[in-house]
Amino acid sequence: MSLADEIATGGPGQQFLAEIREQPAALRALLEHDAAYASVANAMEERNARLVRLVGHGSSDNAASYGIYAFGLIPRWTALRDSITLTVHYDSGPELAASTVIGLSQSGRTPDVVEYVARARRNGAFTVALTNDPGSELAETAEAVLPIGAGQERAVAATKTYTNQIAALALLAAHANGDGGRYADGLRATADLMEGHLAELERLVAPLAVPFSFIGRMFVIGRGPEYATAREIALKLLETCRVAAEPLTATDLAHGPVAALDSLFPVWAIASDDATLPTVVEAAERIRGMGATLVASGVAASMLGSADYALPLPQPPLPLLAPILSVLPGQLFALALARAKGLDPDSPRGLSKVTLAR
Amino acid sequence: MSLADEIATGGPGQQFLAEIREQPAALRALLEHDAAYASVANAMEERNARLVRLVGHGSSDNAASYGIYAFGLIPRWTALRDSITLTVHYDSGPELAASTVIGLSQSGRTPDVVEYVARARRNGAFTVALTNDPGSELAETAEAVLPIGAGQERAVAATKTYTNQIAALALLAAHANGDGGRYADGLRATADLMEGHLAELERLVAPLAVPFSFIGRMFVIGRGPEYATAREIALKLLETCRVAAEPLTATDLAHGPVAALDSLFPVWAIASDDATLPTVVEAAERIRGMGATLVASGVAASMLGSADYALPLPQPPLPLLAPILSVLPGQLFALALARAKGLDPDSPRGLSKVTLAR
Repeated sequence: MSLADEIATGGPGQQFLAEIREQPAALRALLEHDAAYASVANAMEERNARLVRLVGHGSSDNAASYGIYAFGLIPRWTALRDSITLTVHYDSGPELAASTVIGLSQSGRTPDVVEYVARARRNGAFTVALTNDPGSELAETAEAVLPIGAGQERAVAATKTYTNQIAALALLAAHANGDGGRYADGLRATADLMEGHLAELERLVAPLAVPFSFIGRMFVIGRGPEYATAREIALKLLETCRVAAEPLTATDLAHGPVAALDSLFPVWAIASDDATLPTVVEAAERIRGMGATLVASGVAASMLGSADYALPLPQPPLPLLAPILSVLPGQLFALALARAKGLDPDSPRGLSKVTLAR
Repeated sequence: MSLADEIATGGPGQQFLAEIREQPAALRALLEHDAAYASVANAMEERNARLVRLVGHGSSDNAASYGIYAFGLIPRWTALRDSITLTVHYDSGPELAASTVIGLSQSGRTPDVVEYVARARRNGAFTVALTNDPGSELAETAEAVLPIGAGQERAVAATKTYTNQIAALALLAAHANGDGGRYADGLRATADLMEGHLAELERLVAPLAVPFSFIGRMFVIGRGPEYATAREIALKLLETCRVAAEPLTATDLAHGPVAALDSLFPVWAIASDDATLPTVVEAAERIRGMGATLVASGVAASMLGSADYALPLPQPPLPLLAPILSVLPGQLFALALARAKGLDPDSPRGLSKVTLAR
């Protein structure tokens, strides 16, 4: 039975699947805020605040991993996932006049992100709230607000708010380089590609659910902008399927973790058609050398010829937008696997939609 | 039988245990290079190269996580684990005149770290090689060399070179703040504490080996400077024991991964006696709420009262030096667990001492 058929019969995961499918529409809704992104990018340049400090937890922190590449590859600025602890717990924040701080939080209520942004603003940073709730505490705390416009997300595990966060970071970085129009067009085309490809992906992913319902651990590898995808897919598997999934870069895999692999320890690899491809191909050979089952996804999935399962994706008009598509198989796999295991991906035990832990 | 007795009977893990025990002597040997650290810190200040970019893989990258706090807490400079991929694969390195680049590699032969340092030097950074081999390619490529002086390390899994790397980063950050003498004294005292405490730790850790030999996955949590320790302990467990151990900050645990926990998914928590302690205590309560077995280690292990196993450590003279001690129980646990599982921690399958993967 396809995911589409299953959903028609009701049962757990309906919100999660609905929100996965809402992603093309959510991406288009983000673009309604294009002017706000242009204006914030302009302010970053005018204030010469070109060191970009990204802070968030969970999926927002995964999106921040993407932001490092969006700013690094488009305007060639340095972005980092800043330590919240240094500023909030040790009160050791540096002088920040040359920094833009971007606080990422779907709800805008993550306490230590709000606190970090408040302190960074006092230390001279240009502070920006990237949030799904422009009326939230985070939005009130920051100097500027960038709405991600994803619409209400009800499933506990983030989907459309994650893809809109990475699209938002690409759009902001593009505007910082005078390239906003081209990226807005690229995002529109990517939304269309996503819409046209979702049904096929649902079909491709379904056969993986039962074999993977017997495994408890896996690695997810990606490099460059796709490291964010690896982190986000691993998090979906942890929170909705209770699989101990660990994200690694292709190269980090070789520096120790590869020793843990065997035929019962599978690996999901995301392959991009860019300069990092040889590192992922080399990692795939190493993985197969350890006898591990390999799932290949991404634009260049077919280049990992020895994979047991292939989940290829179309090439978006701009290579940097590939992660918007490459997270989809992971989201759908998490849904299918959770259902196969009898878990409810809409509301995993121990979690609530807004995490207030410090 | 104690680890000491076991080692006397021969068998696998002798190099690994010998090098764990060599750590106090290795720390003292590092201090023979104190003048080089003072001189590099001086050059960083003179060139106003106060944005510190750390690059490395595996244990060296874990040490870089510590460097973020060493520079953030002592001179209050921003340090980041920089993207190697942006510079080496995408050729998108930014202008680096205000940056110090520190390449971390035990062997000094990690190819993409060498390549990153070469490119960063051309882009104007002040480049420093932090390595155990001052005659290596990395040392030749960088403008300045900081020997870590750990002596030859033969076991594949790093121990004394990791602790010397973090001690080296603390010493360099201290010199950047005119505080080198105090930290050198603190490191000497920490080496003495370590020496006096090793035998007791070997005794405390031994009873964990058999129960943990039946589990395949765990989380290791720490926050602030101890996040580096969490990463390093998780890596030891992956590479020497084939346990899928994932490092998380105390707060990130709450943002999703906690949902994976149950009574068969244990957690190792490192508790420091500082401003982050409440976050670790809160995480421990959440972990116990999911029924998970909890191992508490670190200076403030006794504050996690509900833990199933406690591995407390003495407080070093300077709080920032605690991670030099808190990695010890993890190293010894990895050794004991590997032996209980019949694995050879000196030479895990699939790994070699020098990793040349790109």
